[in-house]
Amino acid sequence: MPSAGFDSLPLSMAMNLSTLGEFGLISHLARMTPSRGGGVVLGIGDDAAVVKGPKGMNLLLAACDTVIEKIHFEKGASGKEIGWKAMARNISDIAAMGGLPRYALVAATLPRSLLKGRALAIHQGILKAAKDFGIMVVGGDTSHHSGGIHLTVTILGEVHPRHLLTRSGARPGDVVCVTGSLGGSIYGKHLAFTPRMEEARFLARSRFKPTSMIDLSDGLASDLMRLAEQSGVGFEVHAESIPISTEIARRHQRFDDRVRHALADGEDYELLFTVKPGDFSQLQKSWKRRFKLPVTMIGRVRPRSFGLKLLSDGRTKAIKSRTNDHFLD
Amino acid sequence: MPSAGFDSLPLSMAMNLSTLGEFGLISHLARMTPSRGGGVVLGIGDDAAVVKGPKGMNLLLAACDTVIEKIHFEKGASGKEIGWKAMARNISDIAAMGGLPRYALVAATLPRSLLKGRALAIHQGILKAAKDFGIMVVGGDTSHHSGGIHLTVTILGEVHPRHLLTRSGARPGDVVCVTGSLGGSIYGKHLAFTPRMEEARFLARSRFKPTSMIDLSDGLASDLMRLAEQSGVGFEVHAESIPISTEIARRHQRFDDRVRHALADGEDYELLFTVKPGDFSQLQKSWKRRFKLPVTMIGRVRPRSFGLKLLSDGRTKAIKSRTNDHFLD
Repeated sequence: MPSAGFDSLPLSMAMNLSTLGEFGLISHLARMTPSRGGGVVLGIGDDAAVVKGPKGMNLLLAACDTVIEKIHFEKGASGKEIGWKAMARNISDIAAMGGLPRYALVAATLPRSLLKGRALAIHQGILKAAKDFGIMVVGGDTSHHSGGIHLTVTILGEVHPRHLLTRSGARPGDVVCVTGSLGGSIYGKHLAFTPRMEEARFLARSRFKPTSMIDLSDGLASDLMRLAEQSGVGFEVHAESIPISTEIARRHQRFDDRVRHALADGEDYELLFTVKPGDFSQLQKSWKRRFKLPVTMIGRVRPRSFGLKLLSDGRTKAIKSRTNDHFLD
Repeated sequence: MPSAGFDSLPLSMAMNLSTLGEFGLISHLARMTPSRGGGVVLGIGDDAAVVKGPKGMNLLLAACDTVIEKIHFEKGASGKEIGWKAMARNISDIAAMGGLPRYALVAATLPRSLLKGRALAIHQGILKAAKDFGIMVVGGDTSHHSGGIHLTVTILGEVHPRHLLTRSGARPGDVVCVTGSLGGSIYGKHLAFTPRMEEARFLARSRFKPTSMIDLSDGLASDLMRLAEQSGVGFEVHAESIPISTEIARRHQRFDDRVRHALADGEDYELLFTVKPGDFSQLQKSWKRRFKLPVTMIGRVRPRSFGLKLLSDGRTKAIKSRTNDHFLD
């Protein structure tokens, strides 16, 4: 799409980020940004960028993401957890594209008062994730400031064009699936999750290759909305089918509360994907032979006009994304 | 080199970053980080990482760098200048490797109170640099915090293996050269510099291909030290030959002050390189036909045992890097 240019933007320049919201800003920036040509297969708008390698060779994937003290982790998080999380979020993005992570660059902006032991523990967390997923840390940048810990990780990966999974291929009738269970990541999982790399690679290479896939970072509701937008479809989600985490099940007795957490909590880092209507039962059989992690059918893709609806006890209601908008927290 | 591991590090874990210094931290982190295998040609320690493309194809370059409010620019800087600088610093790193920049990812952490007009102006600065240097912005991340503007840009580029320039090839006897003039970047250039892409590409492809090259980001003294370390050599620099910027010449009458600024100010974003002894005069002729920007011989490569010395008025003194160490400011 051509750059929309500064002047044509509809929102007032006097809005600040709290009013505008991160998603609003990103979509505006994306509209301003040229996205065709130069070997770009997919620019802004999916889990990772995709650029063409030389003819016949693998596509290059690139994703980047920042974790910030007091937003993505609290002071009590260990250095290793922080480093792991900064890496794992990006690895999860590469997984969601069907790719393999290869290289990482780490830009660390650290408090001047940070103890060296903590800086090194962060780096150990980074290196642990790198080792576990076969990634080489090839570069980065270190600076200081008066605020908290900021880590920006860029991960480069690769994917064979046949195995590329995007957000844009869901079609009405497809089955909507999710791995693992959702909600309550704040009780620990958000610092210690395992990116679903093996599961994603299995899906990308299987006979049941998903028609679309995304990793659940901002919450089922928000990420469904992204899939809906990019695929130009609607979704019907069956509340009773949503797999609820034990953290949430233990803490909440009311069904509605459980579902609300599963939809809105975010940072599940599970895979949300769609497969062709006939494929799910075979996929599930094949899956169970390989993985302990459950895979669950939670709904159906519908036409765009249907919107995003939750079916519960025979009634439907609209799913609103909590926006999980960092600027609106 | 193998990972040195946490326990074997000589410095006390109780040192904080102010004591340890950024360079100290980076070299420790680099020592902890596996750097062989997996297609890595050059990991941490040069202007950009170099990884192997498929056989016979170009190498992939990756560089990443953060600019931070109050450290790399003041509140008075325009959004466009900030965006430009964040991109241009990385473009300069790709240039210093002899490469061509291709793709950028931008991670922006912005103050919640930032006006939308300023956010968009930053993005315009990013896009202007992208357009001028043929780069596609393919991804990124936006978040907010209570501090100032942080922009981390990752640039991916490519270089033919024959044209790759690193920090490690300087040999005793080589001539030391610098483009442009040095010092006083704080008076404006640091926000508006042009990465020396054309000049670097010319050098990388010419008969006078440098034996080593680096871009001057932290100041001539610091960056000479880096070349010295990576190449395992010493340097003799002729004070009278150092090209002094008009900003410094206008503000300082004393020769020593001028040289001090040229050595220590940093953010010149000129190219510092070494060529074989016989090549300089031919290179200069060829250069003058193409570029208005001057290229100047400022010294000689010496054996490592010589150290880093400034020759002035027949006397020598040791060059100490101002450390320009962000943690020691």
